[in-house]
Amino acid sequence: MTQMVVNVMYNAPADPQAFERYYAETHMPIAAKIPSVEKIVLLKGMAGADGSAPPYYRVAQIYFADEAAMASGMSSPEAQAATADIANFATGGASVLITEVV
Amino acid sequence: MTQMVVNVMYNAPADPQAFERYYAETHMPIAAKIPSVEKIVLLKGMAGADGSAPPYYRVAQIYFADEAAMASGMSSPEAQAATADIANFATGGASVLITEVV
Repeated sequence: MTQMVVNVMYNAPADPQAFERYYAETHMPIAAKIPSVEKIVLLKGMAGADGSAPPYYRVAQIYFADEAAMASGMSSPEAQAATADIANFATGGASVLITEVV
Repeated sequence: MTQMVVNVMYNAPADPQAFERYYAETHMPIAAKIPSVEKIVLLKGMAGADGSAPPYYRVAQIYFADEAAMASGMSSPEAQAATADIANFATGGASVLITEVV
């Protein structure tokens, strides 16, 4: 049984304050309803030691116990609602990386 | 106290089999010596449902208890050796994303 992670990688948004507000108040409550999720880890990018911008603004990691749980969770109406909501606040765009934990 | 993560994101290497061998047999034993590390999570990218290549081949996540532990661990000779070793096998290149867990 291999643990799986859906990584949603957000580029820098046009208005970080607006992003943070929507993310906390609207998006996370929607995403929290996705079924079969083991845990969610929220990462926030930090500037490099030289002040350079991080390659991603944020990464959300949605952990599932195995591939079947991920397939079931991510095909749910709740996951579809969370995915559709990304366009409402991710003004810099976002990309998805599906990984196994090995 | 905010947990910190150094994310090493590897692009697809020229020879995945050679990468995997070096990574497991040589690089991980070097990286395992970095002090002040809480845990390391190894993620391996999977093809999309449509067969598309993942945006990253692998991601290594090095967790530290806080910013002081990260600063101490990443400035150690062991971390410098691990960082210098990346050029020996990451033929597709690698980038680093430093994040806090929020």
